[in-house]
Amino acid sequence: MSMLDSWVDEVGLIGGNGSAVNRFAWTPELLAACEWLVERLRELGLNAEIDAAGNVIGRWDVDGADAGTAVLIGSHLDTVPDGGRFDGALGVLSGLEAIRRLKAEGFGPCRPLWIAAFNDEEGARFGTSMFGSTAFVGDDLTALRDRVGVDGVPLAEAMRQRGFDFDEVPRAKGIDGVGCYLELHIEQGPRMEAQSLDTAVVTAIVGIGGYRVTLRGQTNHAGTTPMGERRDALTGASRVVLALRDAALASGDVTANVGRIEVRPGGTNVIPGEAVFFVDIRTANPNIFPTLGNLVRDTVRTAATAEGLTAEIAVTYEHQPVPMDSELQELLGREMEAQGLAWASLSSGAGHDAQVLAPHVPTGMLFVPSQAGISHAPEEFTPPGQREPGVSVLTSVLKTLLLSENAAVGAIAC
Amino acid sequence: MSMLDSWVDEVGLIGGNGSAVNRFAWTPELLAACEWLVERLRELGLNAEIDAAGNVIGRWDVDGADAGTAVLIGSHLDTVPDGGRFDGALGVLSGLEAIRRLKAEGFGPCRPLWIAAFNDEEGARFGTSMFGSTAFVGDDLTALRDRVGVDGVPLAEAMRQRGFDFDEVPRAKGIDGVGCYLELHIEQGPRMEAQSLDTAVVTAIVGIGGYRVTLRGQTNHAGTTPMGERRDALTGASRVVLALRDAALASGDVTANVGRIEVRPGGTNVIPGEAVFFVDIRTANPNIFPTLGNLVRDTVRTAATAEGLTAEIAVTYEHQPVPMDSELQELLGREMEAQGLAWASLSSGAGHDAQVLAPHVPTGMLFVPSQAGISHAPEEFTPPGQREPGVSVLTSVLKTLLLSENAAVGAIAC
Repeated sequence: MSMLDSWVDEVGLIGGNGSAVNRFAWTPELLAACEWLVERLRELGLNAEIDAAGNVIGRWDVDGADAGTAVLIGSHLDTVPDGGRFDGALGVLSGLEAIRRLKAEGFGPCRPLWIAAFNDEEGARFGTSMFGSTAFVGDDLTALRDRVGVDGVPLAEAMRQRGFDFDEVPRAKGIDGVGCYLELHIEQGPRMEAQSLDTAVVTAIVGIGGYRVTLRGQTNHAGTTPMGERRDALTGASRVVLALRDAALASGDVTANVGRIEVRPGGTNVIPGEAVFFVDIRTANPNIFPTLGNLVRDTVRTAATAEGLTAEIAVTYEHQPVPMDSELQELLGREMEAQGLAWASLSSGAGHDAQVLAPHVPTGMLFVPSQAGISHAPEEFTPPGQREPGVSVLTSVLKTLLLSENAAVGAIAC
Repeated sequence: MSMLDSWVDEVGLIGGNGSAVNRFAWTPELLAACEWLVERLRELGLNAEIDAAGNVIGRWDVDGADAGTAVLIGSHLDTVPDGGRFDGALGVLSGLEAIRRLKAEGFGPCRPLWIAAFNDEEGARFGTSMFGSTAFVGDDLTALRDRVGVDGVPLAEAMRQRGFDFDEVPRAKGIDGVGCYLELHIEQGPRMEAQSLDTAVVTAIVGIGGYRVTLRGQTNHAGTTPMGERRDALTGASRVVLALRDAALASGDVTANVGRIEVRPGGTNVIPGEAVFFVDIRTANPNIFPTLGNLVRDTVRTAATAEGLTAEIAVTYEHQPVPMDSELQELLGREMEAQGLAWASLSSGAGHDAQVLAPHVPTGMLFVPSQAGISHAPEEFTPPGQREPGVSVLTSVLKTLLLSENAAVGAIAC
């Protein structure tokens, strides 16, 4: 078993049972995984710490005043509820393995190599994603101070419980030292397996809209209220779920999902007076993306009118489609070609920390396959043989980027 | 303020805040309300206790070997989640008030008068209704031993926490001493208000089917899984919610409700692999009732097939439509007529403990109005002026039933 494979197994047991993994922002499970990573990085001789935003940052710095900006690699260690062992973690561990290989062969970089495990990419606990990378690039997060987790704990309090201070988050800004960012990730979809690809170069990351919808009708007795006089919030929510799915299917270029719903008061014999649910809607098409908010609002309004409900819609996240850097795409494709891999260029249907970094520094991503296209589930899997090509490409591309005399480095302004 | 009105306010604050009330089986809140009632009954000179099934039973017994069977009145003190102050409680408190009036005027009954506040009529905690009255009539409840509450506590353990023993439940059987049962209740619907009625005689209680439906698809990533390849349990549930509503609307004689739903794993960016929801479906029509189970099963099967899901359906409760005793209906109607009330005969869209008693003893029910037809909600309300006619009819009918020389008593075999 390779070092990478044993690390995958080991980290999969932190907050996990060998299949399902639960590691959420500011929980002991996620922090244990972060501390595990800090130890591994220190063993390899890097400076490593958990920063003020909960990111693990490892630094392989080089001497010299003109050492330049760092090449940053990384991904995340947090998961969705009952998520898998590969989403995020494989990117972090492949980066760790690339560093191990470079160290093992005595490679001497001419510029710094940093690695990050960004905190709370998924947003599973606080309904807001990419907290850590957003802090790393220095964007303002103060609006999230009073955000309350699904467990009822406010964000600032959740941080305090683990010895962190919300007011210190701006200190996590580290983007000024970075020249470019590279992220390896599982595809999380079925396209690579269908095309028998080893690796893929990511062309762009989908734009994502997140909306919290609250429908309110009238709580009432389920047996005594005539059917024609009901104002049932769940029938309204059901209309929205199906209408958004149908609209996405019809478009062909859009995905829509309702993954979380609560109805109140929640008695089997009580008409639900309130339904709160979360819409996630995506497209990589920059022409379609600006229309998605209105699609959600119109769909909700139509359902509410039909069922006699009132509706509230709050935007929980809104990320524009983000193209990846063209020179890094070219560099990655060239390396895949040189290694004789079956590869292609694909868009990413999932959001990634790379989209937060991309507006600041040249950013690239590469994918390895997901078995049966399953992700965000315990069955998420990338077999050992399909992990290796990604690590191999990543390691080689790092060598290119880390040698400042190489033309490609100057070309992408690292 | 009348004694009844101040009792309504007082009991509404036990597990309540003046509007919403939460009193569930074997919780400190419900037991506090039961103990409150025991005290009031003892103050009126009755023998009162909480029995082995958590029922409050108060006994106004009379001397003499030939005193005969008791007239039992009552209802329940437990509520749905965030329920109102009147469902159940008004029946219990009106019974208490009737006893107070009989005592106050020195009435001497020729047979015993008992009052019951039956435990867990709503079934809010353990998903099974009418626990207390079922125990009182001596029906077997052992199948419920391992039933787990919505809070994760098994029934037998919940009882133990309050000093009760599941194995002792059969000792609550008290039906053998009862000759007939009378229950006053709020209508919980809008028909009486629409017809400006003071009181109503209940003709029959609807038959109720309760089903727990589990739909399973495939948990997956919400952005990377092509729309046409999803197996989304919530889209399946949404189809069922709307199809059952439409079928009930079309029938005109059926109500259908989904009041509780949970989707898993519950991430906003995760396709729900599992949805569990509860169907409550009712009709007072004895010809339609036997078809309801198949309606639910066919609807679920159709939705599951359309969405590529598997389905499991478990019956959580199934109560046949229950006609009320015709002689008690006549006695109640005669008394309403004599008091010059605006009254009518109506079926009950809600289930009541009366349906559990009815197969054992002649059973009757009377309704008072619900403002705006709202029930199972904090806004549930019956104004003081609309409580009095019900108490007045109940008190007078009790006098008739408690005088054994009265012809009506023999006629209904009390």
